[in-house]
Amino acid sequence: MAAMASLYLKTSTANRHSFPKLPKSHFTPSLSIPLHPLPASRTRPVTRISASLIEPDGGKLVELFVKESEKDSKLKQALSLPKIRLSKIDLQWVHVLSEGWASPLKGFMRESEFLQTLHFNSLRLENGSFVNMSVPIVLAIDDAQKNEIEERVARTWGTTAPGLPYVKETITGAGNWLIGGDLEVIKPIKYNDDLDRFRLSPTQLRDEFERRNADAVFAFQLRNPVHNGHALLMTDTRCRLLEMGYKNPVLLLHPLGGYTKADDVPLIWRMRQHEKVLEDGVLDPETTVVSIFPSPMHYAGPTEVQWHAKARINAGANFYIVGRDPAGMSHPIEKRDLYDADHGKKVLSMAPGLEKLNILPFKMRTLAKNKENPPDGLMCPGGWKVLVEYYDSLAPAENGRLPEPVPA
Amino acid sequence: MAAMASLYLKTSTANRHSFPKLPKSHFTPSLSIPLHPLPASRTRPVTRISASLIEPDGGKLVELFVKESEKDSKLKQALSLPKIRLSKIDLQWVHVLSEGWASPLKGFMRESEFLQTLHFNSLRLENGSFVNMSVPIVLAIDDAQKNEIEERVARTWGTTAPGLPYVKETITGAGNWLIGGDLEVIKPIKYNDDLDRFRLSPTQLRDEFERRNADAVFAFQLRNPVHNGHALLMTDTRCRLLEMGYKNPVLLLHPLGGYTKADDVPLIWRMRQHEKVLEDGVLDPETTVVSIFPSPMHYAGPTEVQWHAKARINAGANFYIVGRDPAGMSHPIEKRDLYDADHGKKVLSMAPGLEKLNILPFKMRTLAKNKENPPDGLMCPGGWKVLVEYYDSLAPAENGRLPEPVPA
Repeated sequence: MAAMASLYLKTSTANRHSFPKLPKSHFTPSLSIPLHPLPASRTRPVTRISASLIEPDGGKLVELFVKESEKDSKLKQALSLPKIRLSKIDLQWVHVLSEGWASPLKGFMRESEFLQTLHFNSLRLENGSFVNMSVPIVLAIDDAQKNEIEERVARTWGTTAPGLPYVKETITGAGNWLIGGDLEVIKPIKYNDDLDRFRLSPTQLRDEFERRNADAVFAFQLRNPVHNGHALLMTDTRCRLLEMGYKNPVLLLHPLGGYTKADDVPLIWRMRQHEKVLEDGVLDPETTVVSIFPSPMHYAGPTEVQWHAKARINAGANFYIVGRDPAGMSHPIEKRDLYDADHGKKVLSMAPGLEKLNILPFKMRTLAKNKENPPDGLMCPGGWKVLVEYYDSLAPAENGRLPEPVPA
Repeated sequence: MAAMASLYLKTSTANRHSFPKLPKSHFTPSLSIPLHPLPASRTRPVTRISASLIEPDGGKLVELFVKESEKDSKLKQALSLPKIRLSKIDLQWVHVLSEGWASPLKGFMRESEFLQTLHFNSLRLENGSFVNMSVPIVLAIDDAQKNEIEERVARTWGTTAPGLPYVKETITGAGNWLIGGDLEVIKPIKYNDDLDRFRLSPTQLRDEFERRNADAVFAFQLRNPVHNGHALLMTDTRCRLLEMGYKNPVLLLHPLGGYTKADDVPLIWRMRQHEKVLEDGVLDPETTVVSIFPSPMHYAGPTEVQWHAKARINAGANFYIVGRDPAGMSHPIEKRDLYDADHGKKVLSMAPGLEKLNILPFKMRTLAKNKENPPDGLMCPGGWKVLVEYYDSLAPAENGRLPEPVPA
């Protein structure tokens, strides 16, 4: 482990860029989280224990990329087909689908998959078994008329109140007809934002876990900065897994990288903050894989947390850490949380298709923080500094208040 | 079959009461649909083929009645317990639960059952298998505060629009806390409306099907008068089942008897109309069991039709006839149907826990009728006369229009 840690520090130092403090929120800091320390430096013998990784949904990870040899002909063929203009979020879903996060889905949902998702949060496979699928992954096109938006929203979010961020962003105003079917992806989705190298696909993650001889993988989904409570939790989880008899549990620290609402901390700043957490030794880089989960965020609470968990199965995780009110938010028009804070973990533990995933619930302290008062022990100093810089970089809102980060 | 038919007519004649035409809608006509022709009159040998009836959900029909020998002590005990005032619809659910229509539920839902119903439309049994359960059967009590009504409505109806009949009737204004747990029912629910004898429990229906040597039972849920299209369909279904090799398919003509919205034809008039349909020979009484399904109506379309189908499994039906837009209605505030007319049968064919039920879809013609224009061949003359009498009995609404019956 020492060898790995020092390798990490070495790589990290070698790659580090200067990190200037800029006053605009659009500033993109560079990052240096090492994901692939060279196996040559390992002190332990490398033994592949691939059989220990959880099976992907449907038994086989679905990747939708066309073969290298067929790229040219497929591209030619594609040029002659009708075109659909994809929004940024549509593209994030293409990314998700193409790499198999939503295995066994082979493309945007057809009606049968859409209806099963809305009504049962699961898809029945040909052999009669179920895989979980809780959020509709659909592609809207221009329409004559169709009336299912209200129903889709009500069944996915449990409310039709105006102001749901994902609904405003991607459903209202989009076409009412949904088009589905198998996808063939000619070019992998890249964002050219200096973060693509952190966007490991499920296949790449599985390879990485195997390379590290992981015999347990515990995933932590997050869309906010890592604070010390998180870190403690993740460290504790590893201890618990060791006590359970696992020899090498590996943490998948897996920030969500797709669409998030305006008052969430942007991905680039979160990645920078996660980097510091590793650098300061709060989390052990040898047993931690930091990668970006490309999915857009629904903020659909107990419905969405199932998607977050299911996608991590496909990436090889067999343990999933779930906190209070996962994927939750405030009710858009009432003074209360949209979801019961305990429903997420309860629903997760009941969900069809997630039986093979071990759910690890935890209670997190409520946090209140602002840049003037870095609370004792909340976050490592390096991580805290990144956040302060982020909030400094924001132009103050018209009312003079700064947006506050939410705890999870 | 001839013997059975004549027995029917005999019984029917013996029990018939006069049927005066009264000008009020509260008039309750008497009925004489024979349900239990004496087995002694049968010409066929009675061979029990109970093994052919479909298994109830959970393997065993759950009845919640206390043993005769324990009634006194349970009643005594009950008097010392806290009391909850039940609404009329709560009582209908107690009826439903007590007889095992919702097997394997043993009482109003606990939180785990409620959450599984909202999110998955199914309940996981201890052996890992699923039974279908799509509508929350819950008991609301007075509350401090709880915020799940919006979510429950959105997930069950796919809308939160004001004006949903069941929501207005039984959710809005009721307590926000839900209380669940095992029920012990000391006295079976009776309504004393001259229809109790038609309210056969699942056990009684199963006994009746066995007594008739049914090797297939096809259920037809309805909450409206039977017209000739229905009758033709049911007759056709029997022919199809005979062609499939069944020797004695029996129709369960199963009008819904619990809460219905104000503009549906009241149960008593529907039963009177169903009686005429049998009397006029449109349906064969020997192979038809007319009984009342005690459930209240949600008008929750694709969600509710699962409940309608599931409850009939518990009553012994292994075929379920589903039409266009089952359990649907107009959107309460928009000019359109609340649900896609095809979603009901599609969702039914996909629903977890309903695999063992054969779904028989049919397309029904759209019907438009009013009392001045009895359409040719729409309904047998006797059945039509009952409907005319019902509409005559209604005081005209303020706008001078009479409510129109809906087709299914």
